[in-house]
Amino acid sequence: MAGLSENTQKKIAKITGKKYTVSDREELVCHSYDAAGKAGHLPDAIVFPANTDQVSRVLALASADGFSVIPRGSGSGMTGGAVPVNGGVVMVTSRMNRILEIDKENFVARVEPGVVVKDLHDAAAEEGLFYPPDPASSPVCTIGGNVAECAGGPRAVKYGVTRDYVLGLEAVLATGEVIRTGVKTAKGVAGYDLTRLLVGSEGTLAVVTQITLKLIAAPQKVKTMAAVFDSMESAARTVSAVMRDAVLPRCMEYIDRASLDCVKESMSFEIPDSVQAMLIIEVDGAADCVEKDYHDLVDFLRQNGAADVLVSSGAEETERLWQARKSLSPALFRIAPNKINEDIVVPVSRIPDMVTAIKEIGVKYGLYTATFGHAGDGNIHCNIMYDGRDPVQAERSRKAIGEVFDYTLKLGGSITGEHGVGLTKMKYLPGEINETEIRLMKQIKQLFDPSGILNPGKIFY
Amino acid sequence: MAGLSENTQKKIAKITGKKYTVSDREELVCHSYDAAGKAGHLPDAIVFPANTDQVSRVLALASADGFSVIPRGSGSGMTGGAVPVNGGVVMVTSRMNRILEIDKENFVARVEPGVVVKDLHDAAAEEGLFYPPDPASSPVCTIGGNVAECAGGPRAVKYGVTRDYVLGLEAVLATGEVIRTGVKTAKGVAGYDLTRLLVGSEGTLAVVTQITLKLIAAPQKVKTMAAVFDSMESAARTVSAVMRDAVLPRCMEYIDRASLDCVKESMSFEIPDSVQAMLIIEVDGAADCVEKDYHDLVDFLRQNGAADVLVSSGAEETERLWQARKSLSPALFRIAPNKINEDIVVPVSRIPDMVTAIKEIGVKYGLYTATFGHAGDGNIHCNIMYDGRDPVQAERSRKAIGEVFDYTLKLGGSITGEHGVGLTKMKYLPGEINETEIRLMKQIKQLFDPSGILNPGKIFY
Repeated sequence: MAGLSENTQKKIAKITGKKYTVSDREELVCHSYDAAGKAGHLPDAIVFPANTDQVSRVLALASADGFSVIPRGSGSGMTGGAVPVNGGVVMVTSRMNRILEIDKENFVARVEPGVVVKDLHDAAAEEGLFYPPDPASSPVCTIGGNVAECAGGPRAVKYGVTRDYVLGLEAVLATGEVIRTGVKTAKGVAGYDLTRLLVGSEGTLAVVTQITLKLIAAPQKVKTMAAVFDSMESAARTVSAVMRDAVLPRCMEYIDRASLDCVKESMSFEIPDSVQAMLIIEVDGAADCVEKDYHDLVDFLRQNGAADVLVSSGAEETERLWQARKSLSPALFRIAPNKINEDIVVPVSRIPDMVTAIKEIGVKYGLYTATFGHAGDGNIHCNIMYDGRDPVQAERSRKAIGEVFDYTLKLGGSITGEHGVGLTKMKYLPGEINETEIRLMKQIKQLFDPSGILNPGKIFY
Repeated sequence: MAGLSENTQKKIAKITGKKYTVSDREELVCHSYDAAGKAGHLPDAIVFPANTDQVSRVLALASADGFSVIPRGSGSGMTGGAVPVNGGVVMVTSRMNRILEIDKENFVARVEPGVVVKDLHDAAAEEGLFYPPDPASSPVCTIGGNVAECAGGPRAVKYGVTRDYVLGLEAVLATGEVIRTGVKTAKGVAGYDLTRLLVGSEGTLAVVTQITLKLIAAPQKVKTMAAVFDSMESAARTVSAVMRDAVLPRCMEYIDRASLDCVKESMSFEIPDSVQAMLIIEVDGAADCVEKDYHDLVDFLRQNGAADVLVSSGAEETERLWQARKSLSPALFRIAPNKINEDIVVPVSRIPDMVTAIKEIGVKYGLYTATFGHAGDGNIHCNIMYDGRDPVQAERSRKAIGEVFDYTLKLGGSITGEHGVGLTKMKYLPGEINETEIRLMKQIKQLFDPSGILNPGKIFY
């Protein structure tokens, strides 16, 4: 793309109003990268559409005039999915941030894509309802971005991922045509499942403009605990044992020592030097049942190798614990200025093998590793830390992550549990998915977006 | 299709062995219809492949020689999905019925498509695990058919539908190419979601040859109750009230008086004449919690209009109750020799409107109606009974069901919650899905099956 012509830029501004089509250099720079730290080219412009009609008209124009459109929520994606690799127009959904309806009778929410996930949590809670998916970035990330990547988060172990809550979508095709997929009801199987085809398609098939979500009744009570272990393997084995033999927790997060060291000051309790890993575990449900589950689980953890189990004294301590957990990803930069952060997923019984292998691969390449994540569903965030100014370290980090992916697939896992492929995992995708499957996916892309204007240069080469 | 040439038939027999490619007239007749009662043409042959390789070779041959292949499990589908409308080869999965793996550590099952759903239930239960989807036909229907239609059943209200348990698939494309979609883990978002695109595609996109399923821990305890009501509306209002204000049951089935009359002899208790509707409700979970939920729910039902709540005295009575419920669909033929049975779904709060409307539409056209179904998730099985030998009644029944669908869509519902579109709902699909969406679906079909050999004449005109 050789930049937008002045004429095209004027046409876009006419659709959104001048104020909402911008191309100042600061804005362009700010929208050239996302939380993966990857930058592409600068975009040529940024548009902030107000509604479905404006999205539709911009996309129709893009197909006609041949410019790229890169949909973007808050830019908190971890794989470069919102990066304008070849310039074009970044389409930000921040103005489309209305919660249109919380239907308390039918446990359904209807929202625009720019709604911040935490705002949806709060709105649901006000009605006694619950939207479970809770990625670490929930105070800033948008539900549109969550749909695009099929976001997960710690509660997926009990409650599932974004896909499991999306009942239906309104979306705009590359041509500007508006489609409505799925249902507003608990069930529905009329025709092919376009809803789940769009969920996780990373903004490459359509721009989602309205989302119908399933809500559930809010649990009456939540109890949070942190179990500490003197060995990494012992913590990892306990994850598998809890899932198999104890209660189903709503969260079971694993944090290794290297990660703990980056956030320990924010926690409300001391972490002894002997501790090599921590599990943060939450149980929820009806009040009486939760008390019982919690006592059973504390006993189980103590009998299964936990050096200690620290029970949260109340809402404030729980909040601090989760803030520490949620700040882990940025906090790791204390170890080294750069990291490769990959959200691999393995069968839960193989977590001990996986965390051991990550450690060994780090040692082999002389790099620090830090591992944490949603261990209850096998989804491990593996971080290889390096100094990007040193080309030897940078090269080693790439080799190390290649070995991590190879071992993940050998264990029957996947290269991405919830972050998507985006830009950063493109070259690893063919390791997981065969040629025929990639051909089918590319043909689906071609069918939805014949001019190739929607978020080009992502997922597949 | 003008029948298979002798040469083609020989080639098919060579793939499966002569014994497993048959064309005796009795077999052809038996495979010309399914549980919807719809017959198409006779098929030209029936094949019983033993494995993925044979499926692949038959499909490659079909694409080359231009004959249709209609995948079929047990033929218990309710919308004519397995009916060979233009002849061709019916491909029955009954020999591919192995449970390949129950992975107790990771709560995963790997099965072939011909596994009978009840056999999977039993195999999971032996390991203390649970596969929740339980369509009424579970003693005979196959998991392959469940995947093709995205089957639901009574437990979907708490546990979701088939889609929610399918982690990954092995499937054969019309060309004979084998693809492997999805993951063996709890999470995974690498590339587009081909898994859920195939789930519910009614055998029109690929033949599924292996299924990886999520299992969950078996609930410790289940309690079953039947609440009877003196008015249909009162029962329907109670469904909505329970979902909103009481505990989340694992099943909440609605049965109207007309339906009850067809199965009341099989129940172990008397149903007073004043009863106009029954709800069968089950709660499950940890033993202590279930006892509490059950007592709370009995109180709630009594306070919300139930004339009586009958509690199952044990396994045998529960079994009889469910057998009565599950035999409803065929038992309705006591009312009239023909029926139109549609599995509409509406928002739960609109169930009272919907059951009233069905009754009124029946009265308007002078036809008996019988309504039952999975009320907890808004999925109502509406039956219009008629005598097909009387063309006036037949015509009236078609008009009546048209009005039922119109009203369903007006309430924000869907024409099919779990049975699929198949053959019988094709003409109603455009009422729910717009032209652009149908165009996309047809293009997806074209992309997966360029020669149009897979289950032709289904879903779309």
